[in-house]
Amino acid sequence: MAVKPTVSISVIRRLPRYYRFLGDLAKAGINRISSRELSERMGLTASQIRQDLNCFGGFGQQGYGYNVSSLREEIARILGLDNQLNTILIGVGNLGRAIVSHLDFGQRGFNLTAVFDNNPELCGTTIAGMTIMDPSMLEEYCSAHPTQVAILTIPRTAAEALSERLIQCGIRCFWNFSHYDFNLDYENVVVENVHLTDSLMTLGYRVNEYLRTQQTKTEE
Amino acid sequence: MAVKPTVSISVIRRLPRYYRFLGDLAKAGINRISSRELSERMGLTASQIRQDLNCFGGFGQQGYGYNVSSLREEIARILGLDNQLNTILIGVGNLGRAIVSHLDFGQRGFNLTAVFDNNPELCGTTIAGMTIMDPSMLEEYCSAHPTQVAILTIPRTAAEALSERLIQCGIRCFWNFSHYDFNLDYENVVVENVHLTDSLMTLGYRVNEYLRTQQTKTEE
Repeated sequence: MAVKPTVSISVIRRLPRYYRFLGDLAKAGINRISSRELSERMGLTASQIRQDLNCFGGFGQQGYGYNVSSLREEIARILGLDNQLNTILIGVGNLGRAIVSHLDFGQRGFNLTAVFDNNPELCGTTIAGMTIMDPSMLEEYCSAHPTQVAILTIPRTAAEALSERLIQCGIRCFWNFSHYDFNLDYENVVVENVHLTDSLMTLGYRVNEYLRTQQTKTEE
Repeated sequence: MAVKPTVSISVIRRLPRYYRFLGDLAKAGINRISSRELSERMGLTASQIRQDLNCFGGFGQQGYGYNVSSLREEIARILGLDNQLNTILIGVGNLGRAIVSHLDFGQRGFNLTAVFDNNPELCGTTIAGMTIMDPSMLEEYCSAHPTQVAILTIPRTAAEALSERLIQCGIRCFWNFSHYDFNLDYENVVVENVHLTDSLMTLGYRVNEYLRTQQTKTEE
């Protein structure tokens, strides 16, 4: 089944959610689901779901709905979860530690091979079976172990300072928790930014809106 | 300036980004920016930016552009960054610890007042000046300290098990890092989910696409 070349990023961003929801359904022993039921669970419209899945050639049958496990496998294939992208992480503070310890990279298409931190007290200690290395080892490590992805759980200034070296190491794909903006300085890079403070501020807006509505209701 | 009642969530989600970019500009000593320049920096179209800001009554002047600091202040006001929403955090593992230690809640409109964890070795120890409490204290704490928001840095099953108690405590707004889906069980709740694995899987898709493109280029 040919994947259309230009799938919009908003569709791509929904695929992991589909994958997650379908996994929940499979765990609950549900084998088949209509686009209406799936849409109610996911808070999307049924037509949105049909459109999304049509981008990849369409699944499901009129009147039958979707087969949960085969749709899930298909999405896994599209997302490339079977691939093993060689990945390093830089910054073993609390956030880096949480990520290394709690995310199952293997099941998500990534092969986390090495971790780095410039804290001399951490270097040489191990986490998840890996010995933490000093970032001065980056070039040596990457030339021996071709690496596609770097996870940056370091402050913005540190990310900016390391960026050129990472690019020189042949790494052009980043899961970026720092607030450093790669796109200002580099072209032809793939960057997935995670801005926790943006999410927090969005929550704040929504909470304030909610509280205003509640107050209006009370006053009525 | 009246805020139109129905601003779409995608506009809201961009506001923190505007706020961040304008902060960078202010730090760099830039006082004034055209929507074109702002759009180039942010990777949005100029017309998108004008549309976004028009949702809140419009700023900027034809031919002058935007005044960086007054636009930033206005966005801060819209986001409610001056508010102090009383907030608790549950789950002081690596992720909870990262969040408590590194995010400046006060500057984002939140007042983090208490942290909870059911690990007996953590209870009674302190983090960021707060003594970690056992979740059995939740009801007592919240009745003495009215709380609007809970941050959940706990596993899915723990979040599900606690959800009813939190709602009973009067908390209806959540920054949810667990994979528990509040919307399946509760109505009239405000939930900002952070699904790190969704972001990771999106990155995987994009990296695989990128590598395919590179390979095609090499073969050409």
